[in-house]
Amino acid sequence: MIAQWMKHLARALLLLAFSVSSSGYAAPDPLPSWNDGPAKQSIIDYVTRVTKGGGPDYVEPKDRLATFDNDGTLWVEQPMYTQFVFAIDEVKAQVNKHPEWKTTEPFKSVLAGDMKAVAAMGEKGMVEIVAATHSGMSTADFDKTVRGWLEAAKHPRFKVLYTDLIYQPMLELLDYLRANGFKTFIVSGGGVEFMRGFADKTYGIPSEQVIGSSGVTQYAMWDASPVLIKMPKVLFVDDGPGKPEGINHFIGRQPIFAFGNSDGDKEMLEWTAACGRLCFMGLVHHTDAVREYAYDRDSRVGKLDKALDEATAKGWTVVDMKNDWKMIFPAAKAAQ
Amino acid sequence: MIAQWMKHLARALLLLAFSVSSSGYAAPDPLPSWNDGPAKQSIIDYVTRVTKGGGPDYVEPKDRLATFDNDGTLWVEQPMYTQFVFAIDEVKAQVNKHPEWKTTEPFKSVLAGDMKAVAAMGEKGMVEIVAATHSGMSTADFDKTVRGWLEAAKHPRFKVLYTDLIYQPMLELLDYLRANGFKTFIVSGGGVEFMRGFADKTYGIPSEQVIGSSGVTQYAMWDASPVLIKMPKVLFVDDGPGKPEGINHFIGRQPIFAFGNSDGDKEMLEWTAACGRLCFMGLVHHTDAVREYAYDRDSRVGKLDKALDEATAKGWTVVDMKNDWKMIFPAAKAAQ
Repeated sequence: MIAQWMKHLARALLLLAFSVSSSGYAAPDPLPSWNDGPAKQSIIDYVTRVTKGGGPDYVEPKDRLATFDNDGTLWVEQPMYTQFVFAIDEVKAQVNKHPEWKTTEPFKSVLAGDMKAVAAMGEKGMVEIVAATHSGMSTADFDKTVRGWLEAAKHPRFKVLYTDLIYQPMLELLDYLRANGFKTFIVSGGGVEFMRGFADKTYGIPSEQVIGSSGVTQYAMWDASPVLIKMPKVLFVDDGPGKPEGINHFIGRQPIFAFGNSDGDKEMLEWTAACGRLCFMGLVHHTDAVREYAYDRDSRVGKLDKALDEATAKGWTVVDMKNDWKMIFPAAKAAQ
Repeated sequence: MIAQWMKHLARALLLLAFSVSSSGYAAPDPLPSWNDGPAKQSIIDYVTRVTKGGGPDYVEPKDRLATFDNDGTLWVEQPMYTQFVFAIDEVKAQVNKHPEWKTTEPFKSVLAGDMKAVAAMGEKGMVEIVAATHSGMSTADFDKTVRGWLEAAKHPRFKVLYTDLIYQPMLELLDYLRANGFKTFIVSGGGVEFMRGFADKTYGIPSEQVIGSSGVTQYAMWDASPVLIKMPKVLFVDDGPGKPEGINHFIGRQPIFAFGNSDGDKEMLEWTAACGRLCFMGLVHHTDAVREYAYDRDSRVGKLDKALDEATAKGWTVVDMKNDWKMIFPAAKAAQ
């Protein structure tokens, strides 16, 4: 009985404490790396409205789902998708197991360092390189390789780890949403097992909330221990229309909040806009060639064209990286 | 400052309250519908060990993942999988849209009520019936149909809704695990979109924690609104070796606790047994023909043969439904 009484008292005090905080004079800025402006304001207004108990736009915590693209939305994607850089390095690392690569394209050009030739082979070559380097091992071994690579490989321009080239303002946004009862997901065209190698540590997003492109795996016994072997066969491509399909497949409900940065996110944002509640759609527009990169309609990586037009027409939030963000990367990680 | 101080006080009181509870004399039984015996004891011992801070078997809350089969583990699967009963009803409901079914097998036999002929067509006929009735509509329309059916259809023997034929002891187990920081998942051979129609309300498991067999969907615009159309094509079968494959695909980490009831759960239990920590593997053995059903090695539905041998050999927990469970279904729902 005493325990019960103390629990009640403690809960009452906690409630009081929080209500004092929220009406306090010096509530800390939840998005300190965002400059004041329409983008920041639209986020804060939205979160305030859907979390206001009794308000017309209130959404129950269990339905506060937020989905984020990864490449170009949460971390750098230029000059080349990070996972593709990893795949290129893996061609070199695995060539002893695959001597035939020395004489077969697209591997031959990769091994010769002829990235122009690789680029000329287009998406087909890229898919082949990823499929070959991401299969034939157990999921556990692949995970170990990814983690090892991420602890060593450096970005060619910024000379820091790729996991240091995440966007500080977006980290704050993830935290802000979670503090307001949102469940945050990654919904990315990147490989799900590649992203799971860093999403928890880097973004605080556990593996079960990471949705991405996936290959087929096959259950097998190795030395009487069960393993899953990664097969060179695509199960699911989580890009473009694949994003709402992936959201349905993995989550089974529509998010009310989504952020992307390219045409590959268009359908995810449209699907979110049809959530049947007050919903938020946002795009990161890369406008800062000095601190990061500036690209949109003509970019080979992270092309932003149709989604930008749709965002403008429909009044979605477009973040102007140069003007809306005080800083790009977490302090003391990358030179800015 | 006052708010901060009150928060600290409240937290200290809460901690005290909880520690008084846990050392109290009259801690309520977390599994009241379980008879005292080795099955119940093994569950309580396990949960106590992995949640004991500083203990040798302690597992951090973020890694406390528990996966449950659905059919025969959380609810009744006899005399026929519930989803197949739904599919049969849908053949009748959709025949006006598909007049060709009147003259084509396996639909013709379904419409004639000749379930023996349907059964004789085996798994192929069953898959065809499910694929045909579960495609050609939007995911939203399908969800509406499932929910409507579940609110009306009655079980042939117990004459109550299928969602009333869930196992009370397993509901208590789900609650007990969640109260101890576990995240609970369904990992079932059943269709993911069928299960999502009741898993939240019935088991307290949100859609994103329901893993099942899935079909391909296709993103499209209907009257300028985005929809996902269910296609008659299987994406993924979540049964047998498909269970660890599905766990990897959706969750990305191994559970430490898993419960099943048939040979289709064998690989999930093996995969859990290889979790690298103290892990728990359980099987529900249907031994109660009076209150529910008695079946195992020779059953067409929910066959339990190899997994029972493996459980015995490896010392996994086997629940003897007749002796271990005080009640089967929630009180006041089904006559017992």
